[in-house]
Amino acid sequence: VIIPVILCGGAGTRLWPASRADAPKPFLPLVAGCSTFALTLSRIADQTVFAPPVVVASAAHRRLVDAALSRAGITATVLVEPAPRDTAPAIAAAATVVADSDPSAILLVLPADHLIGDTKGFAATVAAALPAAEDGRIVVFGIKPDRAATAYGYVKPGAAIAGGAATVEVFVEKPDAATAEDLVAAGYLWNSGIFLMHAATALAEIERHAKPIAQAAREAVGGATAVGSLTLAADPFLAAPIISFDYAVMEKTDRAAVAAAGFDWSDLGTWAAVWEAADKDAAGNVASGDAVLVDTRGSYVSTTRPRIGVVAVEDVVVVASDDAVLVTSRQRADAVKTLVAAIDAAPEAVIGDFARHHRPWGSYQSLDLGEHHQVKRIVVAPGERLSLQKHAHRAEHWTVVEGVAEVTVGMTMDTLTTKTVQARESIDIPKGAIHRLANRGATPVVVIEVQFGDYLGEDDIIRLEDDYGRQAR
Amino acid sequence: VIIPVILCGGAGTRLWPASRADAPKPFLPLVAGCSTFALTLSRIADQTVFAPPVVVASAAHRRLVDAALSRAGITATVLVEPAPRDTAPAIAAAATVVADSDPSAILLVLPADHLIGDTKGFAATVAAALPAAEDGRIVVFGIKPDRAATAYGYVKPGAAIAGGAATVEVFVEKPDAATAEDLVAAGYLWNSGIFLMHAATALAEIERHAKPIAQAAREAVGGATAVGSLTLAADPFLAAPIISFDYAVMEKTDRAAVAAAGFDWSDLGTWAAVWEAADKDAAGNVASGDAVLVDTRGSYVSTTRPRIGVVAVEDVVVVASDDAVLVTSRQRADAVKTLVAAIDAAPEAVIGDFARHHRPWGSYQSLDLGEHHQVKRIVVAPGERLSLQKHAHRAEHWTVVEGVAEVTVGMTMDTLTTKTVQARESIDIPKGAIHRLANRGATPVVVIEVQFGDYLGEDDIIRLEDDYGRQAR
Repeated sequence: VIIPVILCGGAGTRLWPASRADAPKPFLPLVAGCSTFALTLSRIADQTVFAPPVVVASAAHRRLVDAALSRAGITATVLVEPAPRDTAPAIAAAATVVADSDPSAILLVLPADHLIGDTKGFAATVAAALPAAEDGRIVVFGIKPDRAATAYGYVKPGAAIAGGAATVEVFVEKPDAATAEDLVAAGYLWNSGIFLMHAATALAEIERHAKPIAQAAREAVGGATAVGSLTLAADPFLAAPIISFDYAVMEKTDRAAVAAAGFDWSDLGTWAAVWEAADKDAAGNVASGDAVLVDTRGSYVSTTRPRIGVVAVEDVVVVASDDAVLVTSRQRADAVKTLVAAIDAAPEAVIGDFARHHRPWGSYQSLDLGEHHQVKRIVVAPGERLSLQKHAHRAEHWTVVEGVAEVTVGMTMDTLTTKTVQARESIDIPKGAIHRLANRGATPVVVIEVQFGDYLGEDDIIRLEDDYGRQAR
Repeated sequence: VIIPVILCGGAGTRLWPASRADAPKPFLPLVAGCSTFALTLSRIADQTVFAPPVVVASAAHRRLVDAALSRAGITATVLVEPAPRDTAPAIAAAATVVADSDPSAILLVLPADHLIGDTKGFAATVAAALPAAEDGRIVVFGIKPDRAATAYGYVKPGAAIAGGAATVEVFVEKPDAATAEDLVAAGYLWNSGIFLMHAATALAEIERHAKPIAQAAREAVGGATAVGSLTLAADPFLAAPIISFDYAVMEKTDRAAVAAAGFDWSDLGTWAAVWEAADKDAAGNVASGDAVLVDTRGSYVSTTRPRIGVVAVEDVVVVASDDAVLVTSRQRADAVKTLVAAIDAAPEAVIGDFARHHRPWGSYQSLDLGEHHQVKRIVVAPGERLSLQKHAHRAEHWTVVEGVAEVTVGMTMDTLTTKTVQARESIDIPKGAIHRLANRGATPVVVIEVQFGDYLGEDDIIRLEDDYGRQAR
């Protein structure tokens, strides 16, 4: 049995402004409206080949994972990381969970942010790599380079072994441009980060070459709590070093093997790569959302909200989200990383933050910000509820516009009352009142919140109870 | 006495997305946060030289005019056009109003969308042109070309006459590029659209060369209604042909003269011109709003709301408003006109219209649009009120966040009740109820409106009474 292990850690910094801390790369609709996480799920949907997957994701993204699994109709074991620690601890935890029930299971480790168009070719490569994996090898999928990329590690295939795999002569970390040319000429392959191996092999090699990680994984899994998914115990997991599986294991183990991929591959690392992977019109443009292009060639234009008009330019990238706009050159789309660093270093925006923020219970978005008021749209997922909380500096007025809300409110813990608020009804939350918003129904609850106060910062919150273990303030 | 006549007709199509039908070019903060209308007012603020101005503006922009006049502390006669008919009818109406009280007054006609940095040089040119105007000439200000522009008409100065003016040998309409080169080489000046003349001269020459316009102006002024400003009678005014003063009078009259301008001039016709007129940083960039520029040169970046990140490009124009984004090349900023035509021809946006819309009573902006709800921010100016109205398909819930609102509501005209709604208070408007929102206070009233219904279009409105003469539906 092959158990896919899907790693959701890719942040996608160079895909700003679409990629954000709470909506990272694997969950963005980058490919014809589909996320690479959804496409990864579809790649392992054949139940004659693959068992239900293990998905490793950060706590912040559990809701995005659940929603995509539910849309795909796939049942998975979701391993929730208290915080991401790179791929070695994630793979160690997944291998530990799988080995507990079936040490002979084969793990197929798949980063959730890759694009592989050819599902058949992918399945063929898995089949070709299988004999080596069953023979106790850790098989990495190698991609035949189409350019001297500096963004990937390289691997040099050696002697042929069982099936379609070969031994690994050497791993090379991300090279400079000149070295990359040499590596491509010498027949090196890109290290895709896709691995096939026995759970037991993975654990043994981690134990041998990265003992603290094996231990952290054991303790984090041992102390895990199950709330719909399996949440790894925080203290031991966070004790694991932040390190990739390549550094921690692959560059050291004598069990490494490589299988040359028989499929096209992209990590959609930049907007240029997203453009490259998409269908283009006659002028070489890719446009999605409300975009009007005139006298424009070779460009990528995408918007989730504002109308974009582009005229008389060539090879540009324009990406707009609810609250931000990127403009760059397609040839230099890599530079977005520098831009994001500059933005992070820039002073706080004087205007409001109008992005949609994902939370364990759903999401919220600021719609309007005045001197003494703010308007938010709050979406509570079915079965979820916000923390029991109060605010020192603001009163709130809630109007339910979709679903049926359960609202608890009172000035003290002893006087709390709970009532049902239907769509089109409103309720006041006085300043200082203890309150909670919950969704007991089967469809989302959408609330328009009008806040009043002299201070409207997100940090004016005292949490008295929380389903998701968040801090009191 | 010199009476400035300020014409607010410039639409500024090539300044999309900042320029919109209800927020046209003269009222945009194009120059260091100031509008050209405000800068035009400051140019004629010297009361030893200029009498209070006459401002001619479309009914749709009366509130923008009033607000700017009030900020500038200038009292003006505002002539409200039911709809714009180009400059000849506007000048005819202004001249008629002025001549009624003082036919010997000198009119200084100023388009409200020009940038003239040198107020002293401007005053000097007015002084130089004055003797010719007093002598019964219509003096147009001629601008010394700094390039072979095809966007302006040209005028050829002839023999010197009184003061610093000259006769006009010939007017040339907007030329092609080759002709423009020849005209510049031959010493032609740009026709600025700034005129100095006796009110009586203007009327006499309009009467002689464009009789229907003189008549339309007389009847429109005769039938005008005064509501804070002077609203021209619609039927006669709209009977005037749509034509510029240049075509209607200047190219025909024998009273034409020209005064060479002793000041720098820009009509800020494109974003490139706005960039040209602004202070630039060391990299040649102009940025306003929440913009972060990295490795970018020679570019103009402006935003009223979304954060804009620009990286690794040169000579681009990026302009973002609440609901739309423009990206173009600075060298080809002229092409925005083509883009706007394409946008106007494009199908309705699938997403909502999130622009701020100006109305005679204030403004509104959609903040959120769901399948069965919409959220709007409504701003009612002091002393103004919306129409008495009802909606067939939606209920509304209003929460006042600033000011004190007066709300009238009832299911029939006989059962209307009026109450005061303070900030932080809410009120329901049931579906089908007759209602009205008014501001009796001295500061703006801001209301967050949540609409509920299966149909939320702007056209679901039946007006029972309206202060601004708008139609019932």
